[in-house]
Amino acid sequence: MRVTIYEVGPRDGLQNESVTLPVEVKREFIRRLAEAGLTTIEATSFVHPKWVPQLADAAELLAGMPREPGVCYPVLVPNERGLDRATAQGVTDIAIFGSATESFAQRNLNRTVESQFEMFAPVVERALAGGMRVRAYVSMCFGDPWEGPVAPEQVVRVGRRLLDLGCYQLSLGDTIGVGTPGHVDALLDAFEAAGVGPDRLAVHFHDTYGQALANTLAALRRGITVVDASTGGIGGCPYAKSATGNLATEDLVWMLDGLGVETGVDVRSLVATSLWLADLLGRPSPSRVVQALSKES
Amino acid sequence: MRVTIYEVGPRDGLQNESVTLPVEVKREFIRRLAEAGLTTIEATSFVHPKWVPQLADAAELLAGMPREPGVCYPVLVPNERGLDRATAQGVTDIAIFGSATESFAQRNLNRTVESQFEMFAPVVERALAGGMRVRAYVSMCFGDPWEGPVAPEQVVRVGRRLLDLGCYQLSLGDTIGVGTPGHVDALLDAFEAAGVGPDRLAVHFHDTYGQALANTLAALRRGITVVDASTGGIGGCPYAKSATGNLATEDLVWMLDGLGVETGVDVRSLVATSLWLADLLGRPSPSRVVQALSKES
Repeated sequence: MRVTIYEVGPRDGLQNESVTLPVEVKREFIRRLAEAGLTTIEATSFVHPKWVPQLADAAELLAGMPREPGVCYPVLVPNERGLDRATAQGVTDIAIFGSATESFAQRNLNRTVESQFEMFAPVVERALAGGMRVRAYVSMCFGDPWEGPVAPEQVVRVGRRLLDLGCYQLSLGDTIGVGTPGHVDALLDAFEAAGVGPDRLAVHFHDTYGQALANTLAALRRGITVVDASTGGIGGCPYAKSATGNLATEDLVWMLDGLGVETGVDVRSLVATSLWLADLLGRPSPSRVVQALSKES
Repeated sequence: MRVTIYEVGPRDGLQNESVTLPVEVKREFIRRLAEAGLTTIEATSFVHPKWVPQLADAAELLAGMPREPGVCYPVLVPNERGLDRATAQGVTDIAIFGSATESFAQRNLNRTVESQFEMFAPVVERALAGGMRVRAYVSMCFGDPWEGPVAPEQVVRVGRRLLDLGCYQLSLGDTIGVGTPGHVDALLDAFEAAGVGPDRLAVHFHDTYGQALANTLAALRRGITVVDASTGGIGGCPYAKSATGNLATEDLVWMLDGLGVETGVDVRSLVATSLWLADLLGRPSPSRVVQALSKES
């Protein structure tokens, strides 16, 4: 068995860190991730700099970024303006960021759940016409800070619409990290009942409540083979008021190595990168594996 | 479904914390744990004070400790001298602590794997004759810091001997936290093949590499219904040089609540206790749930 790790550290991780890194440090971060064996690295986001100052350098980053053969560097694109900027940098893979709930759609996109599709439709259409691949994040798939638990059927309705637009994959996000393995099963059941199998789905867990790896295990046992993670577990969720971010890539690789699942990723190389990055970000990595291996003599 | 949480914070947790707590604080800790709904709370250890100074007050602790009806307060007993001291305090439930590996048997017990049974035999015999129940920990069931991965068959051989002595349950410990869910399955397979079903087994995971909850999920799906955990995730493993200890009871309860598994334990009450204790221990709780819920407004 093989699992593809979709690395989100440089985008989802950094965008929630308070220390802004210089562009050359970000390039070095991405270079090290590829060197460790990661083959899908979300590099940055073309969201308006006002909302995510950390990623205001997206165009500059990509302009001078060396690409490794066999490595894909998708970028987040929120709207047509973002697509224009990504296109200008020769981007081949983009991701859009939808919401499963009204509350988060309103706060994050300033739109209703329904009207988000109107925003995404021309982005996806033009991207596909330009030969790009488009992935769709679905956020708040498990719980929402304002609405509480989110019904699987609601997530499936949103997900189906995004697939119908032409997205090749949905990344099901537990944005605030409250989900548990039974909820994962229920959500995957609901997608299966709607004709969407695990080959069209990825999972994206945050470790806010320590559930990310258990949830990932539940998803793997349901046939999911693409897992989002952030090297060092950097990031965090502003809505959950927590310093704990995405599932740490190191903790994921440790489990997959133990399960005999191939990833092509060298965990010790990632740990070295996380220790280097932690110094620059001014806080220790929340990854358990980083903490444990950094104490090896 | 119902899961019994075997709380080890006052013993396995505290024995690895560097700040020594006054006996009345320990009693208050134990009282709060029972108040939160825990029904099995390992209170202390009658190991020689030279080895575990934190628990040197075991007799004094028990002498003045109020017992709640319906709550069991087992204590760790390493040898006959310890059994005498436990008996003097009216203890009804004890636990012994065996090793699956030669290296750890040598370092922790100053014995071989084979000769540990000679030490335990009279302890168990006398305890049973006195009407006590005896649980057996098996440490280093997954990996050993000196020997590397541990073969399931080796663990089963040790476990069978401890059951044959008259222990009612084995607690399978991943003392250094390196195990992953496939290894859990393999170990439970090996026990099943030897005629030892999940009703005789408990699991005891350390979160050193972030795997504890995923491993627990794997065990639950194999029918295990007794899970060891430490409130606040206190503890640590001196052999793994890590500040990360046992699986945090709060992280476990969060998952079980989400799975609809009954435990009778109130997670917010535990979090309040962990925050109180963290101040006294001088370090923040490593539990993700404690960290997340402590930031709730």
